[in-house]
Amino acid sequence: MYYALIMAGGSGTRLWPLSRRLRPKQALKLVGERTMFQHAVDRLAPLFRPQEIFVVTKADYVTPLSAQAPDLPRTNFIVEPEGRGTAPAIGLAAVHLRHQDPEAVMAVLTADHYIVDTAAFRQALAAAQPLAQAGYLITLGVKPASPSTAYGYIQRAEALEGWSLPAYRVARFVEKPNREAAERLVAGGDHAWNAGMFIWRVDRILEELERQMPAFFAQLCEVEAALGTSGYAATLGRLWPQVAEQTIDYGVMEGARNVAVLPVDIGWSDVGSWTSLFELLPVDSAGNAFTGPHLDLDTRDTLVVGGERLIATIGVDNLVIVDAGDALLICSRAREQDVRRVVSQLKSDGLNQWL
Amino acid sequence: MYYALIMAGGSGTRLWPLSRRLRPKQALKLVGERTMFQHAVDRLAPLFRPQEIFVVTKADYVTPLSAQAPDLPRTNFIVEPEGRGTAPAIGLAAVHLRHQDPEAVMAVLTADHYIVDTAAFRQALAAAQPLAQAGYLITLGVKPASPSTAYGYIQRAEALEGWSLPAYRVARFVEKPNREAAERLVAGGDHAWNAGMFIWRVDRILEELERQMPAFFAQLCEVEAALGTSGYAATLGRLWPQVAEQTIDYGVMEGARNVAVLPVDIGWSDVGSWTSLFELLPVDSAGNAFTGPHLDLDTRDTLVVGGERLIATIGVDNLVIVDAGDALLICSRAREQDVRRVVSQLKSDGLNQWL
Repeated sequence: MYYALIMAGGSGTRLWPLSRRLRPKQALKLVGERTMFQHAVDRLAPLFRPQEIFVVTKADYVTPLSAQAPDLPRTNFIVEPEGRGTAPAIGLAAVHLRHQDPEAVMAVLTADHYIVDTAAFRQALAAAQPLAQAGYLITLGVKPASPSTAYGYIQRAEALEGWSLPAYRVARFVEKPNREAAERLVAGGDHAWNAGMFIWRVDRILEELERQMPAFFAQLCEVEAALGTSGYAATLGRLWPQVAEQTIDYGVMEGARNVAVLPVDIGWSDVGSWTSLFELLPVDSAGNAFTGPHLDLDTRDTLVVGGERLIATIGVDNLVIVDAGDALLICSRAREQDVRRVVSQLKSDGLNQWL
Repeated sequence: MYYALIMAGGSGTRLWPLSRRLRPKQALKLVGERTMFQHAVDRLAPLFRPQEIFVVTKADYVTPLSAQAPDLPRTNFIVEPEGRGTAPAIGLAAVHLRHQDPEAVMAVLTADHYIVDTAAFRQALAAAQPLAQAGYLITLGVKPASPSTAYGYIQRAEALEGWSLPAYRVARFVEKPNREAAERLVAGGDHAWNAGMFIWRVDRILEELERQMPAFFAQLCEVEAALGTSGYAATLGRLWPQVAEQTIDYGVMEGARNVAVLPVDIGWSDVGSWTSLFELLPVDSAGNAFTGPHLDLDTRDTLVVGGERLIATIGVDNLVIVDAGDALLICSRAREQDVRRVVSQLKSDGLNQWL
């Protein structure tokens, strides 16, 4: 059987002050009237039925996310005691799925990214399934819309023979490049954005975890052995703090066998910053995007994310203005990467109420 | 006897969104922990005792202003049914004072301006009294701190003979000039800012009102006749809507006899705009002034008037940011005169909740 796993444990500091410890990015309505998590669930139908959709997340998030997607069985929420990076999250979900269906194929998806062309996205997931069935670890390679320095890249090698769809062996994974390097990669035509979405057989990913992350795999086997027993929560709670943090890219993909990239052109964005959200929103003739009540005089190229409060702007341009109720951000668009520095500063100052 | 009259009926749209219909500028804590009205009352002691301080204002403002200055007798609040400009407000107060003390000298003062050197201010008021007693209409002429285009000017003529203090006859009143003209006026050395503060005998100002605004004077006499009777409120309420709007400058001062200007150097500001408030506040090494919780990265020459909410600014300069709870202003400093346009827009859109 084919399952979707939505990874929904992240918090995200780059969309502060809207995203917060207890109000993560995936729970926000950033585009339209649905939350990012709801978009992530919505776009899987009709390819996956609700019972085939799993979510791995933090304990704190289960109740709000479950309320946002009431069709998903509550038992399909796999809870990590704490986040240890994508590799442990995926490993934990993999043993859950194997426990339920030893022949499971899983699509590892994200809860807080946006996809414009959801039909093309489902088509790619459907096309990837037989390839995954055949033992490949598939990664979706998003056609670059720009020489972004915010994403990692995947270089493709030769096409896979014997498959109708265009899929390629992976030559290498490239970390987030600088601007110059990004322009070179995109100009070359053989690099795609690494969107962090994967399709594989559960037994294949567990085999790679065993080979490449043996210490973690041993911990995972203990957890798996406790599955379905009354000791599960205690076992997981005891082991998880000892699990080393690791990403699936570094921990598995870069050293894995039979890695393939499936090129997709689906209008994907990680919505990883205010500017990347801005790019998704319709703008007025002066290049502004507003939510909430506003009144502007001579305002250009400005994003205003508001709420109840009236926001008036006069004679400003290229600003990001975000009103999150108890906190307010006014940021030059050119400096949006520094939003993280505000969050760090709040942490080091112990100003938890605004985190 | 010598009385102070604080004119406190104005609303002010240039400090929107902080100043509002029901929260006028004089009721705001713009500088320090006292409201502008409290500053206006505070700086009169010990020259005037509370019972010698009168306030002319709108009915809506009496309760809040009286609460801010509990030492002032409630009966010293003279209520205008509606604002008709400074000439009617002063005329109404003058008949109240004459009713109480036919030989009263009154200092007409403002509730929403700021004065740094309050000792020099009291000294000027004290010095003006004998001159007023002698029949002059005295206006305070503030030494210009800059060639401001926001104020009117007073040109002085020859010095008044026989008085120890330096006072001058007034050559002319000058309306708000353009920049070039303002520079010329200030360079000349014989022009002072018109701060709208006056000292005169009550019978002298009423004499000028009779001569220069006879229609209004007739209405005023009807009001005066009703003073102390049960018909006062009805008489005032009937007549006031028929009173023509007029300022004391146009209605009286420009055509008055025996007008004198008393030069003062008291650190006066009308706080008539966000920039003029900014000039009164201490700034940090980057030229910023903040109130309320804030966190800034690379922010320069920016005024942040906040409250409870955290305001974070990144990579911005020369902005005025005002958080008034239910409304928020983000304005280029160069465009602060357009704050009034926002208020007009709100009015024409019927968005009264934000007025």
